[in-house]
Amino acid sequence: MNAVRFHGQYDLRYEEIPIPEVKPGQVKIKPAWVGICGSDLHEYLGGPNLCPTTPHPITGETVPLTFGHEFSGVVEEVADDVKDYKKGDRVVVQPIIYDGTCTACEEGLHNCCWSNGFVGLSGWGGGLADHIVVQTSTLYHLPDNVPLEIGALVEPLAKGDVVLILGSGPIGISTILALKAKGCDRIIVSEVSRKRQEFAKTFGADYIIDPTKEDIPKRCKELSDGKGVHIVYDCAGVQAALDQAVHATRPRGCILNIAIWEKLCTITPKDFNFKERMYMGIATYEIGDFQEVIDALSSGSIKPHEMITQRIKLTEVEEKGFRSLIHDKDNQVKILVEVGGGD
Amino acid sequence: MNAVRFHGQYDLRYEEIPIPEVKPGQVKIKPAWVGICGSDLHEYLGGPNLCPTTPHPITGETVPLTFGHEFSGVVEEVADDVKDYKKGDRVVVQPIIYDGTCTACEEGLHNCCWSNGFVGLSGWGGGLADHIVVQTSTLYHLPDNVPLEIGALVEPLAKGDVVLILGSGPIGISTILALKAKGCDRIIVSEVSRKRQEFAKTFGADYIIDPTKEDIPKRCKELSDGKGVHIVYDCAGVQAALDQAVHATRPRGCILNIAIWEKLCTITPKDFNFKERMYMGIATYEIGDFQEVIDALSSGSIKPHEMITQRIKLTEVEEKGFRSLIHDKDNQVKILVEVGGGD
Repeated sequence: MNAVRFHGQYDLRYEEIPIPEVKPGQVKIKPAWVGICGSDLHEYLGGPNLCPTTPHPITGETVPLTFGHEFSGVVEEVADDVKDYKKGDRVVVQPIIYDGTCTACEEGLHNCCWSNGFVGLSGWGGGLADHIVVQTSTLYHLPDNVPLEIGALVEPLAKGDVVLILGSGPIGISTILALKAKGCDRIIVSEVSRKRQEFAKTFGADYIIDPTKEDIPKRCKELSDGKGVHIVYDCAGVQAALDQAVHATRPRGCILNIAIWEKLCTITPKDFNFKERMYMGIATYEIGDFQEVIDALSSGSIKPHEMITQRIKLTEVEEKGFRSLIHDKDNQVKILVEVGGGD
Repeated sequence: MNAVRFHGQYDLRYEEIPIPEVKPGQVKIKPAWVGICGSDLHEYLGGPNLCPTTPHPITGETVPLTFGHEFSGVVEEVADDVKDYKKGDRVVVQPIIYDGTCTACEEGLHNCCWSNGFVGLSGWGGGLADHIVVQTSTLYHLPDNVPLEIGALVEPLAKGDVVLILGSGPIGISTILALKAKGCDRIIVSEVSRKRQEFAKTFGADYIIDPTKEDIPKRCKELSDGKGVHIVYDCAGVQAALDQAVHATRPRGCILNIAIWEKLCTITPKDFNFKERMYMGIATYEIGDFQEVIDALSSGSIKPHEMITQRIKLTEVEEKGFRSLIHDKDNQVKILVEVGGGD
């Protein structure tokens, strides 16, 4: 079968690899649509970073690895012991890999597993291939096309909060959608790109700040009764934006990092000390978050369809996928790769 | 009168300045004992940083400024309208300066005031002088000699928590004392200096790690049932220690910065994302914290007396105070300057 595999920085290959076999507890899936994620892009531009270069403690694999961790698909084959899924079922894969035995997993924090990894980044195949075999425990039945990972993003929000979102790329927009669904009515978005500013408005941002023209802290204070925002969602991972956002945050407010930074960032501790601010990181999802998002899509409280700005083929991943996201990023939110396609 | 004033980096002068006048609501104090604080040292070595070089929004002052914000004293004179204090009263000054009108102050977060400052760092005089005039609202009656500022440090602690303290200088030791008083029984201290390791043991640390010989994350996991520590109290402000401490923190654990860093620090966002860790800053005290510490000293639940490693005169501040803390820091915890002296 064919797969798009990541070999290292700027080295993505469409190549032939063996078809994986189905073992007990597993199903084989024909990926339908696969989202290209910012994390994939970060690996391509600055990695391997999340992708292991020494054997991953759970999968045992290293680069080259098949990419694709945001995907839907159709079940092609199931192991004899699998009862909940059958051939033809439409599914979505929650790609977190965890050992289930470490102290974090024991406390139910599977996404914080000491050895955590991801299907499509850490081994066990990926969505950008003709077939993939996964454990049924990673599967959710799919009533709609769901490439989003937003369940965990809204947790710190309290009703009535004023929030600032840095960047309105796919994660920024997913955050807008999730916050809107939770009833947040003062969403400020800071975004440089004109086109992405428009996307943000379309998806429900209440105020847009252009950080090249306006002072983020000043504007945020104006929009929050002089108090500063409760929460900053950093969906950009840009040092200059973070530096300003800290000062836009009210005392005891929170900066929530969702962005994948290729390297490290700097902070000024005294800005945290003397305003008792908080910096948190959050990524991926608890078991069950996918179901919550699927339900929100099904009920219509989240409507992400306009996020899909381009649809491409498996053979076009590097040229029309990765390169578009790098060189034409202003016009792109989510690019989907059609593998099996459908719907 | 004479005062020790900070003019800029490495520039501390014992010089003559006018005696301040008492206005309504104020008292004049003869400072008794004044602690030299790490913040003073940071200003001396790398400042002005906390000390204003443009007029402070509340005091209107800039460097040169009289140093000394940890001090006790005796009331010498009171304004006609002052009823709660009289000549001869032994007092301690809570040195935070806040405007009382900003959005943070309105919510009771005076220590997070948007314009906050400190007596002894931002103007309105300091303890390292023959006299100082302060508002009575900053005063607490003193049953004992109290140079500590630890009330706020123990808030995130939950019974049974395992904590790591980075550095056992004066703030590290104050943190040990405060945590012990709150019943914490697994306190790990990471400290390079042999002498300071001994101080930490004396004051109640349960485990000492020498970071030059041992791996902090590995050792902390061993000492916390494999889980990592709940809270790291960064009382060192050293990049290498912070880098290791992040990995010693359990998923959803917290790194609490108390240290004053002269500049910025670096963090690796993915270490926060994929373990959902938190970084918080905390500094100074809420109104009332001083009373809590005074009560703890009075009841004997905190016994800090052995922290005082040296007593010097006002004329010796730079030579025997600051230079000792820089060049003989291993043997020093808290150096007190005798101004009026007493007890």
